[in-house]
Amino acid sequence: MEKIAVIGAGSWGSALALVLSDNSHEVRLWTHNKSQAEEINHTHINSKYLPNAKLPNEIRAYHDLKQAVDGVSTVVLVVPTTAIREVCKQLGEVLNHKVTIIHGTKGIEPKTLKRVSEMIEEELPRKYYEEVVVLSGPSHAEEVSDRQPTTVTASSNSIAEAEKAQDLFINENFRVYTSPDMIGVELGGALKNIIALGSGISDGLGYGDNAKAALMTRGLAEIARLGTSMGANPLTFIGLAGVGDLIVTCTSVHSRNWKAGSLLGKGNSLDDVLNKMGMVVEGARTTKAAYQFSQEKKIEMPITNGIYRILFEEAKPKDVVDQLMTRMRRHEMEDLSNILNNKYSS
Amino acid sequence: MEKIAVIGAGSWGSALALVLSDNSHEVRLWTHNKSQAEEINHTHINSKYLPNAKLPNEIRAYHDLKQAVDGVSTVVLVVPTTAIREVCKQLGEVLNHKVTIIHGTKGIEPKTLKRVSEMIEEELPRKYYEEVVVLSGPSHAEEVSDRQPTTVTASSNSIAEAEKAQDLFINENFRVYTSPDMIGVELGGALKNIIALGSGISDGLGYGDNAKAALMTRGLAEIARLGTSMGANPLTFIGLAGVGDLIVTCTSVHSRNWKAGSLLGKGNSLDDVLNKMGMVVEGARTTKAAYQFSQEKKIEMPITNGIYRILFEEAKPKDVVDQLMTRMRRHEMEDLSNILNNKYSS
Repeated sequence: MEKIAVIGAGSWGSALALVLSDNSHEVRLWTHNKSQAEEINHTHINSKYLPNAKLPNEIRAYHDLKQAVDGVSTVVLVVPTTAIREVCKQLGEVLNHKVTIIHGTKGIEPKTLKRVSEMIEEELPRKYYEEVVVLSGPSHAEEVSDRQPTTVTASSNSIAEAEKAQDLFINENFRVYTSPDMIGVELGGALKNIIALGSGISDGLGYGDNAKAALMTRGLAEIARLGTSMGANPLTFIGLAGVGDLIVTCTSVHSRNWKAGSLLGKGNSLDDVLNKMGMVVEGARTTKAAYQFSQEKKIEMPITNGIYRILFEEAKPKDVVDQLMTRMRRHEMEDLSNILNNKYSS
Repeated sequence: MEKIAVIGAGSWGSALALVLSDNSHEVRLWTHNKSQAEEINHTHINSKYLPNAKLPNEIRAYHDLKQAVDGVSTVVLVVPTTAIREVCKQLGEVLNHKVTIIHGTKGIEPKTLKRVSEMIEEELPRKYYEEVVVLSGPSHAEEVSDRQPTTVTASSNSIAEAEKAQDLFINENFRVYTSPDMIGVELGGALKNIIALGSGISDGLGYGDNAKAALMTRGLAEIARLGTSMGANPLTFIGLAGVGDLIVTCTSVHSRNWKAGSLLGKGNSLDDVLNKMGMVVEGARTTKAAYQFSQEKKIEMPITNGIYRILFEEAKPKDVVDQLMTRMRRHEMEDLSNILNNKYSS
């Protein structure tokens, strides 16, 4: 059994801490919010982010980062993309030994277009770890904390590190696969949030399941095209971290990005939505990053482009979705072939 | 404007008749049930199969097949898989001129393992048509009749015939793509019903969205593997007729196959379910056909195999789903690569 620090006590951090505790590891759950740490230690409830779960008594919440990581073998980073750089800087100041670094954050940084593992590598001195591991897949925190069957993918440039993560997390309810395609697994988790916003918008406009399925299918092709051009293996996008996560995020009542989209579809502005939700909506930042990348590289991304215009240029959701639905190519296959051909024709 | 006979007045046949009528074609809707024909002609409602839609007054229902196809340019076949052979035999007796044949039936015949277009070719003399066209995609009839945005794929061995179908059906709400992969488009529509049964079973057991998304993702890989071995282009399975139709069928309240699965998951036997639903559940027959094919060809299909055992061998749904969830490969990619490699490594 190992000592593990989970950094970030949002819903996903709390759920991952619960899985690790179920596997009898000594789990420390760090939060920047002192009263949240006190609440978890006294009541074993994270009332803001995971209100329906009773956290195991053995999980200990920390507000002091140095104490949280003292002597741990593994650090699991689960903070919003916006906080990754700052938390890694602080981590570099308090760590004094090598650890396994696993992250469960889904996003891309606008402007730099960096993935989360790249941000970690830039901020945390390499002497403290071998290779970053990402954990991603179709996994609503609420269901994981309820011990519902869930599957995820662990990926790293070091297969040994990915397998370490697999061994730490795997149990009867929480199944962990490994994949060598770190870029694809990180991008799949991040980019699907763009399509989740789009699905929410379609639902918010009152369109049906046919329209949403079409948008998800075309969206999958689009994020696979973008991901492949960023170095991912296109197969990853038809796996758990791709279409699996896309499905769960676009069709589930638990998804924050879907919910934000749905509010946009009903006519709320992005500011209204962010105020109403009171939680981070990673999809908005990811849309900006993907839009910038597609403009730079001249990659055709009509869905991302449309959602960008709704979010940041006050385009009307109905106009955008109607345009997307009537935009035609006569042959669907041309489009799909373009995604995979670069990879497989050689 | 053309004269078109739609053969089969179930929910999908009625919805397609409505689309064609919206496009100003003269539409005749044939049904084997005389009182249904009378109801449609008098009330313009198909109360059993599409109760919430008002059919255009211009659609005329027929009970006499010879009258229905007299002088039409196009015949759209939308009868259950079990009825395809018999209806085509009758059609061969009453047709006396060449037509465009389009079908919208999703299934495979057990034992022979034939696709619907192959059954049509065996029963209907070739002098009456050039090449069969299949129309398939994420398209619940209820939403199509409500003029909700919908996208489908038309495919044929003759691209000219596929484009004829596209021209007949396409309008602002109903978008039609074409694809040259007839085998893939037919198999995508048929095989997804197996996974829809599985998703329903998972939901019926009370499992969550994480489990269902995992089952759908693994199921997509499985039906792509089977389809590719039957001659389909694997790319079709990540298009509208593949993952698009899979998503809409597995996640929508309208899906009969999902509903049947959900009743099975709650402990009903297949006979109970078929009695309760009073409608054809294509997925049960397709599961049998796919199971037989996988046994003959030694193709690994754990999900299809498990659903077959629930349907026909009284296996307990919970045992089967739990087995599927805990069945592990360490590397997800191995599995996915196997699907596409045969196609793309050469």
